[in-house]
Amino acid sequence: MNGTSSSNNIKQDNPPSLQNPYTQHYSDLLSRVNKFSIIESTLREGEQFANAFFDTATKIEIAKALDAFGVEYIELTSPAASEQSREDCVAICNLGLKAKILTHIRCHMGDAQIAVETGVDGVDVVIGTSSYLREFSHGKDMNYITTQAIEVVNYVKSKGIEVRFSSEDSFRSDLVDLLSIYRTVDKIGVNRVGIADTVGCANPRQVYDLVRTLRGVVSCDIECHFHNDTGCAIANAYAALEAGATHIDTSVLGIGERNGITPLGGLVARMYTADKEYIKNKYKLHMLRDLENLVADAVQVQVPFNNYITGYCSFTHKAGIHAKAILNNPSTYEILKPEDFGMTRYVSIGHRLTGWNAVKNRVEQLGLTLTDDQVKQVTIKIKELADIRPLTMEDVDNLLRDFHNAITSGDQLRVDGVLAVGTN
Amino acid sequence: MNGTSSSNNIKQDNPPSLQNPYTQHYSDLLSRVNKFSIIESTLREGEQFANAFFDTATKIEIAKALDAFGVEYIELTSPAASEQSREDCVAICNLGLKAKILTHIRCHMGDAQIAVETGVDGVDVVIGTSSYLREFSHGKDMNYITTQAIEVVNYVKSKGIEVRFSSEDSFRSDLVDLLSIYRTVDKIGVNRVGIADTVGCANPRQVYDLVRTLRGVVSCDIECHFHNDTGCAIANAYAALEAGATHIDTSVLGIGERNGITPLGGLVARMYTADKEYIKNKYKLHMLRDLENLVADAVQVQVPFNNYITGYCSFTHKAGIHAKAILNNPSTYEILKPEDFGMTRYVSIGHRLTGWNAVKNRVEQLGLTLTDDQVKQVTIKIKELADIRPLTMEDVDNLLRDFHNAITSGDQLRVDGVLAVGTN
Repeated sequence: MNGTSSSNNIKQDNPPSLQNPYTQHYSDLLSRVNKFSIIESTLREGEQFANAFFDTATKIEIAKALDAFGVEYIELTSPAASEQSREDCVAICNLGLKAKILTHIRCHMGDAQIAVETGVDGVDVVIGTSSYLREFSHGKDMNYITTQAIEVVNYVKSKGIEVRFSSEDSFRSDLVDLLSIYRTVDKIGVNRVGIADTVGCANPRQVYDLVRTLRGVVSCDIECHFHNDTGCAIANAYAALEAGATHIDTSVLGIGERNGITPLGGLVARMYTADKEYIKNKYKLHMLRDLENLVADAVQVQVPFNNYITGYCSFTHKAGIHAKAILNNPSTYEILKPEDFGMTRYVSIGHRLTGWNAVKNRVEQLGLTLTDDQVKQVTIKIKELADIRPLTMEDVDNLLRDFHNAITSGDQLRVDGVLAVGTN
Repeated sequence: MNGTSSSNNIKQDNPPSLQNPYTQHYSDLLSRVNKFSIIESTLREGEQFANAFFDTATKIEIAKALDAFGVEYIELTSPAASEQSREDCVAICNLGLKAKILTHIRCHMGDAQIAVETGVDGVDVVIGTSSYLREFSHGKDMNYITTQAIEVVNYVKSKGIEVRFSSEDSFRSDLVDLLSIYRTVDKIGVNRVGIADTVGCANPRQVYDLVRTLRGVVSCDIECHFHNDTGCAIANAYAALEAGATHIDTSVLGIGERNGITPLGGLVARMYTADKEYIKNKYKLHMLRDLENLVADAVQVQVPFNNYITGYCSFTHKAGIHAKAILNNPSTYEILKPEDFGMTRYVSIGHRLTGWNAVKNRVEQLGLTLTDDQVKQVTIKIKELADIRPLTMEDVDNLLRDFHNAITSGDQLRVDGVLAVGTN
């Protein structure tokens, strides 16, 4: 149980109200929030994103960047999908990366044979177990699925590499069927079983319950894969880890089928709140932004304005009361330290919601000298102007300098002029 | 308990495995997932977004659009923030909208007096209760906060309008302090108490526990406000409703301080999975896209590529096995019906992950006649071409037509020509 001690102790060095409320304050034997691995699937799930067409050079560049960031596993498209997919898989296996290389195949012997020839460190096998998929996709019953699974798992194991068996659409599968097949493959020595919310609709309490139940049934590792159609992909990953899952699938910016899966950056933000030091030691957090830009360029999308950590306003503070507190102590309104991610904080003051504390801070940054009363006067002026039109930072700085010059000139008429609405 | 019966019954008309797994299959007395209200805060929290500068006309347009969509409450920036904020508040109150109009103020008598004069239907009062905020923001102790709260709540109540009392940074507040002040304001007759995850770091199990505890302490309604810094804002809202919360704060596209709060569209997607009919009856879902475009334009951002429901790839299916099943029965890989939101499904086939079932569907859409073996042949060709370069739908359609023409010509050389790699 290396690596778990930091959060399994009751922290007593801070008064209770100043403890980090996001770490565990008591032992939680199931939880793996500070002992998990990422299976990074930008080059598999991400290739299923509408815009994705990765040529070999791009795949290699992304694989190297993921490896440099520090993900534990990189998952690739099935080599059975196309000849180029197979060649790319071989090429990435030959890069000698630190991350283990996996490929993701259907539960077919033919696919398995092609996969083990590529040099991968492991094979992720998947088959649909839900009534929906059994009826409308592959049309096979549970006996057939079980027989097939045993054959494929044993074959991959015989090659001395890792093998995972995953159901698809796990949350609409019959629970007893699901546990039965997982127990079977666990007994024959699979490395991991996988749970997949293929339609993106599980919620955290369901996830916690299913993973906790499964944790009592199998002794192997548990991998989880969550789609984000209804906005729970990050929270579900967290709930799964709380319940004892060991591996989480991600992709950069969450790209994948439909609106995608758990995003790498979003998961990192979430897990950072659970154990900051663990995450900072495990991953090169300052590389996140370049990694996201690389993938965004490759699939020709904009990084969303509200992206986790690297979105351009993730560390922008605007409301007057927020700005004041942030200037006193950033952790009042920030759970993520921007500098840990190579980002910077920005306190916006040129708007009608501004407060005099934030303006005072700017006055000091500009090297100007004003009394608190004078700052309050000029803050009223900023609010009045901002009611009329948007103000840039430059507008605000010019106003502050004009006001300061008028004050120091000692000419009250000039001061009044600066403070009159609409005159500049 | 009107409106709750549909999910409180055990559904027995489908075999268990084909029941919707996302509704409750047993009575859950606390849950309000199908009996809740939205407090839409685009015109308050959203105004704290870095890019937001709403002039009066824009505010009115957004308020009308929110009202037409069907949100129960619209929350506005404090009229104490600036003179224009006050005038806009009055103007929106005078629109005669169906939605109730709220404004959000600090726990100050001065702010409360300005607020009640505007004609709002209710006032949302907030004060920071965490040790962080008490030390670094307003510097006040719990006795002072309680006294202030009682005075402001009683004053707003005396005017005959709704009043909510909310803590700020609730998840870093001392639990006993928090419950104590909530019980106090509940006893003097507040309409709602509010929980706010101001720093965006609570997780769903924490939220469930806090709301469930609070549900046992107060008899008034419970409102929840979740920031999205670590990706749990939608899941936390859902967990809060499961635990008995009654009101959820949203903004369009989630805009707000930093990377924002629970997005309206994302919450709708989540709640639709819990009780589709309830959500379809309550809100005009086909208006969502226009509403989001209106706000995106107003704050000059792009709707994120992976936005819930309305993102351009939300209903795009690409992997071969997905495409096949989707064509047999859309609910295999879709929990949201695109037509319920005025959206359309798109099955992408011009790529190396394509499958012959999806290609066959396109052949039929084009009115061409090919045997299954012929479709399989042309699918191999599509995969080969897509390994070399991205294919547009037009490329694929031209290939299918060329192949069909060659087949019907009866000239095998011509067929072979079409199928040779790289010749077209």
